[in-house]
Amino acid sequence: MEKLDLLYEGKAKRVYKTDDPRYYIIEYKDEATAFDGKKKGIIQGKGTVNNKVSAVFFQLLEENGVPTHFVELLSPTEMLVKRVEIIPLEVIVRNYAAGSISRRLGLEEGIKFDQPIVEFCYKNDELGDPMVNNYHILAMKLANEEEINALTQQALRINQILSQFLLGKNIILVDFKLEFGRTDEGDIVLADEISPDTCRFWDSATMEKLDKDRFRRDMGGVEEAYMEIARRLGCV
Amino acid sequence: MEKLDLLYEGKAKRVYKTDDPRYYIIEYKDEATAFDGKKKGIIQGKGTVNNKVSAVFFQLLEENGVPTHFVELLSPTEMLVKRVEIIPLEVIVRNYAAGSISRRLGLEEGIKFDQPIVEFCYKNDELGDPMVNNYHILAMKLANEEEINALTQQALRINQILSQFLLGKNIILVDFKLEFGRTDEGDIVLADEISPDTCRFWDSATMEKLDKDRFRRDMGGVEEAYMEIARRLGCV
Ligand SMILES: Nc1ncnc2c1ncn2[C@@H]1O[C@H](COP(=O)(O)OP(=O)(O)O)[C@@H](O)[C@H]1O
Ligand SMILES: Nc1ncnc2c1ncn2[C@@H]1O[C@H](COP(=O)(O)OP(=O)(O)O)[C@@H](O)[C@H]1O
Ligand SMILES: [Mg+2]
Ligand SMILES: [Mg+2]
Repeated sequence: MEKLDLLYEGKAKRVYKTDDPRYYIIEYKDEATAFDGKKKGIIQGKGTVNNKVSAVFFQLLEENGVPTHFVELLSPTEMLVKRVEIIPLEVIVRNYAAGSISRRLGLEEGIKFDQPIVEFCYKNDELGDPMVNNYHILAMKLANEEEINALTQQALRINQILSQFLLGKNIILVDFKLEFGRTDEGDIVLADEISPDTCRFWDSATMEKLDKDRFRRDMGGVEEAYMEIARRLGCV
Repeated sequence: MEKLDLLYEGKAKRVYKTDDPRYYIIEYKDEATAFDGKKKGIIQGKGTVNNKVSAVFFQLLEENGVPTHFVELLSPTEMLVKRVEIIPLEVIVRNYAAGSISRRLGLEEGIKFDQPIVEFCYKNDELGDPMVNNYHILAMKLANEEEINALTQQALRINQILSQFLLGKNIILVDFKLEFGRTDEGDIVLADEISPDTCRFWDSATMEKLDKDRFRRDMGGVEEAYMEIARRLGCV
Protein backbone atom coordinates (compact mmCIF):
# COMPACT_ATOMS: atom_id res chain seq x y z
CA MET A 1 0.00 0.00 0.00
CA GLU A 2 1.46 3.36 -0.96
CA LYS A 3 1.27 6.40 1.38
CA LEU A 4 -0.17 9.33 -0.57
CA ASP A 5 -1.50 12.83 0.38
CA LEU A 6 -1.96 13.95 3.96
CA LEU A 7 -5.74 14.08 4.32
CA TYR A 8 -5.93 15.76 7.71
CA GLU A 9 -3.79 16.37 10.72
CA GLY A 10 -5.44 16.12 14.15
CA LYS A 11 -4.08 16.81 17.61
CA ALA A 12 -2.57 13.33 17.99
CA LYS A 13 -2.43 11.74 14.54
CA ARG A 14 -2.01 12.34 10.83
CA VAL A 15 -4.30 10.60 8.36
CA TYR A 16 -2.99 9.81 4.85
CA LYS A 17 -4.67 8.53 1.72
CA THR A 18 -3.32 5.39 0.09
CA ASP A 19 -3.48 4.12 -3.48
CA ASP A 20 -6.57 2.10 -2.45
CA PRO A 21 -9.54 4.42 -1.68
CA ARG A 22 -10.82 1.95 0.92
CA TYR A 23 -7.79 2.37 3.18
CA TYR A 24 -6.02 5.14 5.11
CA ILE A 25 -2.68 5.21 6.86
CA ILE A 26 -2.72 6.68 10.37
CA GLU A 27 0.52 8.09 11.75
CA TYR A 28 0.71 8.60 15.52
CA LYS A 29 2.48 11.76 16.75
CA ASP A 30 4.50 12.52 19.90
CA GLU A 31 2.65 15.86 20.23
CA ALA A 32 0.25 15.98 23.19
CA THR A 33 -2.57 18.41 23.99
CA ALA A 34 -4.99 18.69 26.91
CA PHE A 35 -7.88 20.89 28.07
CA ASP A 36 -9.28 21.57 24.59
CA GLY A 37 -5.80 22.25 23.20
CA LYS A 38 -4.95 24.91 25.82
CA LYS A 39 -2.05 22.79 27.17
CA LYS A 40 0.55 21.57 24.66
CA GLY A 41 3.69 19.46 24.88
CA ILE A 42 5.75 16.57 23.52
CA ILE A 43 5.74 13.09 25.03
CA GLN A 44 8.80 11.30 23.65
CA GLY A 45 7.87 7.89 22.23
CA LYS A 46 4.11 8.45 22.59
CA GLY A 47 3.48 7.94 18.87
CA THR A 48 5.12 4.53 18.96
CA VAL A 49 3.41 3.45 22.17
CA ASN A 50 -0.05 4.57 21.08
CA ASN A 51 0.29 2.96 17.66
CA LYS A 52 1.40 -0.40 19.07
CA VAL A 53 -0.95 -0.37 22.07
CA SER A 54 -3.92 0.50 19.84
CA ALA A 55 -2.98 -2.40 17.56
CA VAL A 56 -2.96 -4.81 20.52
CA PHE A 57 -6.42 -3.64 21.62
CA PHE A 58 -7.90 -3.66 18.11
CA GLN A 59 -6.65 -7.20 17.53
CA LEU A 60 -7.98 -8.36 20.89
CA LEU A 61 -11.38 -6.85 20.08
CA GLU A 62 -11.51 -8.39 16.59
CA GLU A 63 -10.72 -11.80 18.14
CA ASN A 64 -13.72 -11.21 20.41
CA GLY A 65 -16.06 -10.35 17.56
CA VAL A 66 -15.94 -6.53 17.74
CA PRO A 67 -15.41 -5.06 14.26
CA THR A 68 -12.70 -2.35 14.08
CA HIS A 69 -11.01 -0.25 11.39
CA PHE A 70 -7.62 -1.89 12.08
CA VAL A 71 -5.90 -3.74 9.23
CA GLU A 72 -2.20 -4.00 10.13
CA LEU A 73 0.82 -2.27 11.64
CA LEU A 74 3.06 -0.71 8.99
CA SER A 75 5.85 0.80 11.10
CA PRO A 76 6.49 1.78 14.73
CA THR A 77 4.26 4.85 14.31
CA GLU A 78 1.94 3.85 11.44
CA MET A 79 -1.02 1.55 10.95
CA LEU A 80 -3.21 0.72 7.98
CA VAL A 81 -6.94 1.18 8.67
CA LYS A 82 -10.23 0.99 6.81
CA ARG A 83 -11.47 4.38 5.70
CA VAL A 84 -14.67 5.23 7.57
CA GLU A 85 -17.00 8.17 7.88
CA ILE A 86 -16.41 9.12 11.52
CA ILE A 87 -19.64 9.50 13.55
CA PRO A 88 -19.05 12.87 15.31
CA LEU A 89 -19.65 11.44 18.79
CA GLU A 90 -17.18 10.60 21.50
CA VAL A 91 -18.49 7.55 23.31
CA ILE A 92 -17.15 7.54 26.86
CA VAL A 93 -17.35 4.59 29.25
CA ARG A 94 -16.56 5.09 32.93
CA ASN A 95 -16.02 2.38 35.56
CA TYR A 96 -14.61 4.74 38.20
CA ALA A 97 -15.13 8.49 38.75
CA ALA A 98 -12.17 10.53 37.48
CA GLY A 99 -11.47 13.74 35.60
CA SER A 100 -14.33 15.75 34.13
CA ILE A 101 -17.13 13.71 35.71
CA SER A 102 -15.68 14.23 39.21
CA ARG A 103 -15.52 17.98 38.69
CA ARG A 104 -18.86 18.28 36.89
CA LEU A 105 -20.94 16.13 39.24
CA GLY A 106 -18.99 16.55 42.48
CA LEU A 107 -18.04 12.85 42.67
CA GLU A 108 -14.89 11.92 44.54
CA GLU A 109 -12.15 10.67 42.21
CA GLY A 110 -11.73 6.91 42.53
CA ILE A 111 -15.26 5.84 43.53
CA LYS A 112 -16.36 2.78 41.57
CA PHE A 113 -19.74 2.89 39.84
CA ASP A 114 -22.15 -0.02 40.42
CA GLN A 115 -22.67 -0.15 36.65
CA PRO A 116 -20.47 1.33 33.90
CA ILE A 117 -21.56 4.82 32.83
CA VAL A 118 -21.91 5.56 29.12
CA GLU A 119 -21.74 9.18 27.93
CA PHE A 120 -21.93 10.74 24.49
CA CYS A 121 -20.16 13.98 23.61
CA TYR A 122 -20.58 15.87 20.38
CA LYS A 123 -17.10 15.79 18.78
CA ASN A 124 -16.59 19.49 18.05
CA ASP A 125 -13.39 21.25 19.10
CA GLU A 126 -14.90 24.76 18.88
CA LEU A 127 -17.71 23.85 21.27
CA GLY A 128 -15.37 21.89 23.58
CA ASP A 129 -17.00 18.48 22.90
CA PRO A 130 -20.23 19.15 24.87
CA MET A 131 -22.14 16.25 26.40
CA VAL A 132 -25.32 15.28 24.54
CA ASN A 133 -28.20 12.93 25.26
CA ASN A 134 -30.18 10.77 22.83
CA TYR A 135 -32.65 13.58 22.08
CA HIS A 136 -29.82 15.95 21.09
CA ILE A 137 -28.16 13.27 18.93
CA LEU A 138 -31.43 12.66 17.07
CA ALA A 139 -32.27 16.38 16.74
CA MET A 140 -28.80 17.14 15.35
CA LYS A 141 -28.97 14.02 13.15
CA LEU A 142 -25.56 12.86 14.41
CA ALA A 143 -26.84 9.25 14.51
CA ASN A 144 -30.20 7.49 14.36
CA GLU A 145 -31.81 5.55 17.20
CA GLU A 146 -30.57 2.18 15.95
CA GLU A 147 -27.03 3.53 15.74
CA ILE A 148 -27.19 5.04 19.24
CA ASN A 149 -28.18 1.63 20.60
CA ALA A 150 -25.45 -0.10 18.59
CA LEU A 151 -22.80 2.37 19.84
CA THR A 152 -23.94 1.88 23.44
CA GLN A 153 -23.93 -1.91 23.22
CA GLN A 154 -20.56 -2.02 21.44
CA ALA A 155 -19.03 0.37 23.97
CA LEU A 156 -20.21 -1.77 26.91
CA ARG A 157 -18.96 -4.95 25.20
CA ILE A 158 -15.57 -3.30 24.54
CA ASN A 159 -15.44 -2.26 28.19
CA GLN A 160 -15.94 -5.87 29.30
CA ILE A 161 -13.27 -7.25 26.97
CA LEU A 162 -10.65 -4.58 27.73
CA SER A 163 -11.31 -4.44 31.49
CA GLN A 164 -10.85 -8.18 31.87
CA PHE A 165 -7.76 -8.30 29.67
CA LEU A 166 -6.13 -5.34 31.44
CA LEU A 167 -6.82 -6.69 34.91
CA GLY A 168 -4.68 -9.67 33.87
CA LYS A 169 -1.88 -7.11 33.38
CA ASN A 170 -2.53 -5.52 36.78
CA ILE A 171 -4.17 -2.49 35.17
CA ILE A 172 -7.56 -1.04 36.12
CA LEU A 173 -9.46 0.43 33.16
CA VAL A 174 -10.90 3.54 34.83
CA ASP A 175 -12.53 5.13 31.78
CA PHE A 176 -11.98 5.58 28.05
CA LYS A 177 -13.19 7.39 24.95
CA LEU A 178 -14.12 5.68 21.69
CA GLU A 179 -14.89 6.89 18.18
CA PHE A 180 -16.87 4.86 15.70
CA GLY A 181 -17.29 5.17 11.95
CA ARG A 182 -19.53 3.98 9.15
CA THR A 183 -17.91 1.82 6.45
CA ASP A 184 -18.89 2.02 2.78
CA GLU A 185 -21.05 -1.06 3.42
CA GLY A 186 -22.98 0.86 6.11
CA ASP A 187 -21.56 -1.14 9.02
CA ILE A 188 -20.49 0.58 12.23
CA VAL A 189 -16.91 -0.22 13.25
CA LEU A 190 -14.67 0.99 16.05
CA ALA A 191 -12.16 3.55 14.70
CA ASP A 192 -9.57 6.07 15.95
CA GLU A 193 -7.26 4.82 18.77
CA ILE A 194 -7.27 3.14 22.19
CA SER A 195 -4.21 4.29 24.10
CA PRO A 196 -2.95 6.03 27.24
CA ASP A 197 -4.10 9.25 25.49
CA THR A 198 -7.72 8.10 25.37
CA CYS A 199 -8.00 5.82 28.43
CA ARG A 200 -7.31 6.17 32.13
CA PHE A 201 -5.18 3.27 33.38
CA TRP A 202 -4.38 2.77 37.08
CA ASP A 203 -1.97 0.18 38.44
CA SER A 204 -4.28 -2.26 40.25
CA ALA A 205 -1.92 -2.66 43.21
CA THR A 206 -0.73 0.93 43.80
CA MET A 207 -3.48 2.91 41.98
CA GLU A 208 -0.61 4.79 40.29
CA LYS A 209 -1.70 6.64 37.14
CA LEU A 210 -0.27 5.20 33.91
CA ASP A 211 -1.85 7.53 31.37
CA LYS A 212 -2.14 11.07 30.02
CA ASP A 213 -3.29 12.41 33.39
CA ARG A 214 0.44 12.50 34.31
CA PHE A 215 0.83 15.06 31.48
CA ARG A 216 -2.44 16.92 32.19
CA ARG A 217 -1.58 17.28 35.87
CA ASP A 218 2.21 17.83 35.53
CA MET A 219 2.92 14.75 37.64
CA GLY A 220 6.20 13.81 35.94
CA GLY A 221 7.08 10.30 34.79
CA VAL A 222 4.94 10.77 31.69
CA GLU A 223 7.17 8.91 29.19
CA GLU A 224 7.77 6.20 31.78
CA ALA A 225 4.01 5.64 32.24
CA TYR A 226 3.45 5.25 28.49
CA MET A 227 6.41 2.87 28.28
CA GLU A 228 5.10 0.87 31.24
CA ILE A 229 1.77 0.32 29.49
CA ALA A 230 3.57 -0.75 26.30
CA ARG A 231 5.73 -3.12 28.35
CA ARG A 232 2.80 -4.74 30.15
CA LEU A 233 1.00 -5.26 26.84
CA GLY A 234 4.08 -6.91 25.36
CA CYS A 235 4.77 -4.14 22.80
CA VAL A 236 8.44 -3.67 23.73
CA MET B 1 -54.38 26.56 57.27
CA GLU B 2 -51.97 28.52 59.46
CA LYS B 3 -48.63 29.81 58.09
CA LEU B 4 -45.84 28.69 60.45
CA ASP B 5 -42.00 28.69 60.28
CA LEU B 6 -40.07 29.59 57.15
CA LEU B 7 -38.63 26.24 56.08
CA TYR B 8 -36.31 27.46 53.35
CA GLU B 9 -35.84 30.48 51.15
CA GLY B 10 -34.78 29.87 47.56
CA LYS B 11 -33.89 32.31 44.81
CA ALA B 12 -37.52 32.91 43.76
CA LYS B 13 -39.75 31.61 46.55
CA ARG B 14 -40.09 31.08 50.28
CA VAL B 15 -41.46 27.80 51.61
CA TYR B 16 -43.36 27.79 54.93
CA LYS B 17 -44.61 25.00 57.14
CA THR B 18 -48.28 24.93 58.05
CA ASP B 19 -50.16 23.42 61.00
CA ASP B 20 -50.79 20.36 58.81
CA PRO B 21 -47.53 18.47 58.12
CA ARG B 22 -48.84 17.36 54.71
CA TYR B 23 -48.97 20.93 53.36
CA TYR B 24 -46.60 23.83 52.72
CA ILE B 25 -47.27 27.44 51.80
CA ILE B 26 -45.17 28.80 48.92
CA GLU B 27 -44.65 32.55 48.72
CA TYR B 28 -43.45 33.96 45.40
CA LYS B 29 -40.88 36.78 45.53
CA ASP B 30 -40.16 39.74 43.23
CA GLU B 31 -36.42 39.00 43.49
CA ALA B 32 -34.90 37.69 40.25
CA THR B 33 -31.57 35.98 39.62
CA ALA B 34 -29.90 34.67 36.48
CA PHE B 35 -26.69 32.92 35.41
CA ASP B 36 -26.32 30.81 38.58
CA GLY B 37 -27.14 33.80 40.80
CA LYS B 38 -24.41 36.03 39.29
CA LYS B 39 -27.04 38.51 38.03
CA LYS B 40 -29.54 39.87 40.56
CA GLY B 41 -32.49 42.27 40.43
CA ILE B 42 -36.11 43.00 41.27
CA ILE B 43 -38.98 42.50 38.86
CA GLN B 44 -41.94 44.46 40.27
CA GLY B 45 -45.05 42.30 40.44
CA LYS B 46 -43.23 39.08 39.46
CA GLY B 47 -44.29 37.29 42.65
CA THR B 48 -47.96 37.93 41.93
CA VAL B 49 -47.72 37.00 38.26
CA ASN B 50 -45.75 33.79 38.87
CA ASN B 51 -48.07 32.69 41.68
CA LYS B 52 -51.23 33.25 39.63
CA VAL B 53 -49.81 31.94 36.34
CA SER B 54 -48.49 28.80 38.05
CA ALA B 55 -51.95 28.25 39.55
CA VAL B 56 -53.56 28.47 36.10
CA PHE B 57 -51.12 25.92 34.67
CA PHE B 58 -51.37 23.54 37.63
CA GLN B 59 -55.17 23.59 37.43
CA LEU B 60 -55.11 23.01 33.67
CA LEU B 61 -52.75 20.06 34.15
CA GLU B 62 -54.87 18.54 36.95
CA GLU B 63 -57.94 18.80 34.69
CA ASN B 64 -55.94 16.85 32.10
CA GLY B 65 -54.96 14.11 34.52
CA VAL B 66 -51.46 15.27 35.48
CA PRO B 67 -51.00 15.15 39.27
CA THR B 68 -49.44 18.30 40.78
CA HIS B 69 -48.61 19.64 44.24
CA PHE B 70 -51.10 22.52 43.84
CA VAL B 71 -53.96 22.80 46.34
CA GLU B 72 -55.22 26.40 46.19
CA LEU B 73 -54.31 30.06 45.91
CA LEU B 74 -54.16 31.78 49.32
CA SER B 75 -53.28 35.36 48.37
CA PRO B 76 -51.81 37.25 45.38
CA THR B 77 -48.33 35.88 46.20
CA GLU B 78 -49.08 32.66 48.09
CA MET B 79 -50.32 29.18 47.27
CA LEU B 80 -50.99 26.09 49.36
CA VAL B 81 -49.21 22.98 48.07
CA LYS B 82 -48.69 19.37 49.06
CA ARG B 83 -45.38 18.81 50.81
CA VAL B 84 -43.17 16.62 48.64
CA GLU B 85 -39.62 15.34 48.70
CA ILE B 86 -38.18 17.16 45.70
CA ILE B 87 -36.34 14.89 43.23
CA PRO B 88 -33.08 16.84 42.67
CA LEU B 89 -33.47 16.91 38.90
CA GLU B 90 -34.49 19.74 36.64
CA VAL B 91 -36.49 18.25 33.79
CA ILE B 92 -36.18 20.51 30.75
CA VAL B 93 -38.33 20.24 27.63
CA ARG B 94 -37.36 22.14 24.48
CA ASN B 95 -39.48 22.70 21.38
CA TYR B 96 -37.21 25.36 19.88
CA ALA B 97 -33.48 26.04 20.33
CA ALA B 98 -32.84 28.95 22.72
CA GLY B 99 -30.53 29.87 25.56
CA SER B 100 -28.03 27.37 26.92
CA ILE B 101 -28.65 24.71 24.27
CA SER B 102 -27.92 27.19 21.45
CA ARG B 103 -24.61 28.17 23.05
CA ARG B 104 -23.61 24.66 24.11
CA LEU B 105 -24.42 22.85 20.87
CA GLY B 106 -24.01 25.70 18.38
CA LEU B 107 -27.69 25.65 17.33
CA GLU B 108 -29.20 28.84 15.95
CA GLU B 109 -31.73 30.36 18.35
CA GLY B 110 -35.25 29.84 17.06
CA ILE B 111 -34.87 26.60 15.09
CA LYS B 112 -37.74 24.21 15.80
CA PHE B 113 -36.88 20.64 16.74
CA ASP B 114 -38.65 17.81 14.84
CA GLN B 115 -39.39 16.21 18.23
CA PRO B 116 -39.33 17.83 21.68
CA ILE B 117 -35.97 17.45 23.45
CA VAL B 118 -35.97 16.25 27.07
CA GLU B 119 -32.94 17.02 29.25
CA PHE B 120 -32.16 16.28 32.88
CA CYS B 121 -29.94 18.51 35.01
CA TYR B 122 -28.74 17.69 38.49
CA LYS B 123 -30.30 20.41 40.69
CA ASN B 124 -27.21 21.64 42.53
CA ASP B 125 -26.42 25.35 42.73
CA GLU B 126 -22.74 24.84 43.63
CA LEU B 127 -22.15 22.69 40.54
CA GLY B 128 -24.25 24.98 38.32
CA ASP B 129 -26.99 22.39 37.63
CA PRO B 130 -24.90 20.17 35.31
CA MET B 131 -26.62 18.08 32.65
CA VAL B 132 -26.84 14.37 33.44
CA ASN B 133 -27.91 11.29 31.49
CA ASN B 134 -29.76 8.20 32.71
CA TYR B 135 -26.51 6.45 33.71
CA HIS B 136 -25.48 9.41 35.91
CA ILE B 137 -28.93 9.61 37.50
CA LEU B 138 -28.82 5.90 38.39
CA ALA B 139 -25.18 6.02 39.59
CA MET B 140 -25.92 9.02 41.83
CA LYS B 141 -29.19 7.40 42.95
CA LEU B 142 -31.14 10.59 42.15
CA ALA B 143 -34.02 8.49 40.75
CA ASN B 144 -34.55 4.89 39.68
CA GLU B 145 -35.21 3.71 36.13
CA GLU B 146 -38.99 3.60 36.58
CA GLU B 147 -38.95 7.16 37.92
CA ILE B 148 -36.77 8.40 35.04
CA ASN B 149 -39.31 6.98 32.59
CA ALA B 150 -42.22 8.47 34.54
CA LEU B 151 -40.55 11.92 34.63
CA THR B 152 -39.88 11.78 30.89
CA GLN B 153 -43.43 10.71 30.02
CA GLN B 154 -45.00 13.29 32.35
CA ALA B 155 -42.77 16.06 30.98
CA LEU B 156 -43.73 15.24 27.39
CA ARG B 157 -47.44 15.07 28.33
CA ILE B 158 -47.18 18.42 30.12
CA ASN B 159 -45.50 19.88 27.04
CA GLN B 160 -48.42 18.78 24.86
CA ILE B 161 -51.04 20.19 27.19
CA LEU B 162 -49.31 23.53 27.81
CA SER B 163 -48.18 24.05 24.19
CA GLN B 164 -51.70 23.59 22.85
CA PHE B 165 -53.28 25.77 25.54
CA LEU B 166 -50.72 28.56 25.07
CA LEU B 167 -51.00 28.58 21.28
CA GLY B 168 -54.67 29.47 21.86
CA LYS B 169 -53.34 32.57 23.65
CA ASN B 170 -50.94 33.36 20.78
CA ILE B 171 -47.96 32.19 22.80
CA ILE B 172 -45.29 29.74 21.64
CA LEU B 173 -43.95 27.52 24.42
CA VAL B 174 -40.25 27.49 23.45
CA ASP B 175 -38.89 25.54 26.41
CA PHE B 176 -39.44 25.08 30.15
CA LYS B 177 -38.03 23.55 33.31
CA LEU B 178 -39.98 21.31 35.67
CA GLU B 179 -39.35 19.90 39.14
CA PHE B 180 -41.07 16.82 40.46
CA GLY B 181 -41.46 15.45 43.97
CA ARG B 182 -42.38 12.26 45.79
CA THR B 183 -45.47 12.40 48.02
CA ASP B 184 -45.73 10.52 51.31
CA GLU B 185 -47.74 7.91 49.38
CA GLY B 186 -44.77 7.40 47.02
CA ASP B 187 -46.45 9.02 44.01
CA ILE B 188 -44.55 11.38 41.73
CA VAL B 189 -46.26 14.75 41.29
CA LEU B 190 -45.30 17.94 39.49
CA ALA B 191 -44.04 20.54 42.00
CA ASP B 192 -42.33 23.95 42.08
CA GLU B 193 -43.64 26.54 39.59
CA ILE B 194 -44.47 27.08 35.91
CA SER B 195 -44.02 30.76 35.09
CA PRO B 196 -42.16 33.28 32.92
CA ASP B 197 -39.19 32.57 35.25
CA THR B 198 -39.08 28.90 34.27
CA CYS B 199 -40.45 28.93 30.70
CA ARG B 200 -39.57 30.72 27.48
CA PHE B 201 -42.70 32.27 25.93
CA TRP B 202 -42.63 33.95 22.52
CA ASP B 203 -45.52 35.88 21.00
CA SER B 204 -46.64 33.64 18.12
CA ALA B 205 -47.16 36.56 15.73
CA THR B 206 -44.13 38.75 16.47
CA MET B 207 -41.79 36.22 18.16
CA GLU B 208 -41.35 38.86 20.88
CA LYS B 209 -39.93 37.43 24.12
CA LEU B 210 -42.42 37.43 27.01
CA ASP B 211 -40.27 35.87 29.73
CA LYS B 212 -37.22 36.16 31.96
CA ASP B 213 -34.89 36.43 28.94
CA ARG B 214 -35.85 40.14 28.91
CA PHE B 215 -34.22 40.37 32.36
CA ARG B 216 -31.28 38.05 31.56
CA ARG B 217 -30.44 40.00 28.40
CA ASP B 218 -31.25 43.53 29.67
CA MET B 219 -33.89 43.98 26.97
CA GLY B 220 -36.19 46.27 28.95
CA GLY B 221 -39.95 45.81 29.21
CA VAL B 222 -39.47 43.08 31.80
CA GLU B 223 -42.45 43.93 34.06
CA GLU B 224 -44.62 44.50 30.99
CA ALA B 225 -43.78 41.03 29.62
CA TYR B 226 -44.73 39.32 32.88
CA MET B 227 -47.97 41.36 33.02
CA GLU B 228 -48.76 40.48 29.41
CA ILE B 229 -48.51 36.75 30.17
CA ALA B 230 -50.76 37.22 33.23
CA ARG B 231 -53.23 39.17 31.10
CA ARG B 232 -53.37 36.57 28.31
CA LEU B 233 -53.95 33.81 30.88
CA GLY B 234 -56.80 35.78 32.44
CA CYS B 235 -55.00 36.41 35.76
CA VAL B 236 -55.57 40.20 35.83
N1 LIG C 1 -10.57 4.90 10.10
C1 LIG C 1 -10.68 6.21 10.05
N2 LIG C 1 -11.17 6.82 8.91
C2 LIG C 1 -11.29 8.17 8.86
N3 LIG C 1 -10.94 9.00 9.86
C3 LIG C 1 -10.47 8.46 11.01
C4 LIG C 1 -10.32 7.06 11.16
N4 LIG C 1 -9.85 6.82 12.42
C5 LIG C 1 -9.71 8.03 13.02
N5 LIG C 1 -10.07 9.02 12.18
C6 LIG C 1 -10.04 10.48 12.45
O1 LIG C 1 -8.70 10.91 12.35
C7 LIG C 1 -8.61 12.23 12.92
C8 LIG C 1 -7.22 12.45 13.48
O2 LIG C 1 -7.07 11.94 14.80
P1 LIG C 1 -6.69 12.90 16.01
O3 LIG C 1 -5.32 13.45 15.81
O4 LIG C 1 -6.95 12.10 17.25
O5 LIG C 1 -7.76 14.08 15.82
P2 LIG C 1 -8.48 15.04 16.90
O6 LIG C 1 -7.60 16.25 17.01
O7 LIG C 1 -9.82 15.31 16.26
O8 LIG C 1 -8.63 14.25 18.18
C9 LIG C 1 -9.78 12.33 13.89
O9 LIG C 1 -10.71 13.28 13.35
C10 LIG C 1 -10.39 10.93 13.86
O10 LIG C 1 -11.79 10.99 14.06
N1 LIG D 1 -44.33 21.05 47.06
C1 LIG D 1 -43.07 21.28 47.47
N2 LIG D 1 -42.57 20.66 48.58
C2 LIG D 1 -41.30 20.89 48.99
N3 LIG D 1 -40.44 21.71 48.37
C3 LIG D 1 -40.85 22.34 47.23
C4 LIG D 1 -42.18 22.15 46.73
N4 LIG D 1 -42.29 22.89 45.59
C5 LIG D 1 -41.10 23.51 45.39
N5 LIG D 1 -40.22 23.20 46.38
C6 LIG D 1 -38.84 23.69 46.56
O1 LIG D 1 -38.89 25.01 47.06
C7 LIG D 1 -37.61 25.61 46.92
C8 LIG D 1 -37.74 27.11 46.75
O2 LIG D 1 -37.99 27.45 45.42
P1 LIG D 1 -37.00 28.42 44.63
O3 LIG D 1 -36.96 29.76 45.26
O4 LIG D 1 -37.38 28.32 43.19
O5 LIG D 1 -35.59 27.69 44.92
P2 LIG D 1 -34.25 27.61 44.05
O6 LIG D 1 -33.39 28.75 44.46
O7 LIG D 1 -33.68 26.26 44.43
O8 LIG D 1 -34.65 27.63 42.59
C9 LIG D 1 -36.92 24.83 45.80
O9 LIG D 1 -35.87 24.06 46.37
C10 LIG D 1 -38.02 23.88 45.30
O10 LIG D 1 -37.47 22.66 44.84
MG1 LIG E 1 -8.31 12.37 18.80
MG1 LIG F 1 -36.34 27.58 41.53
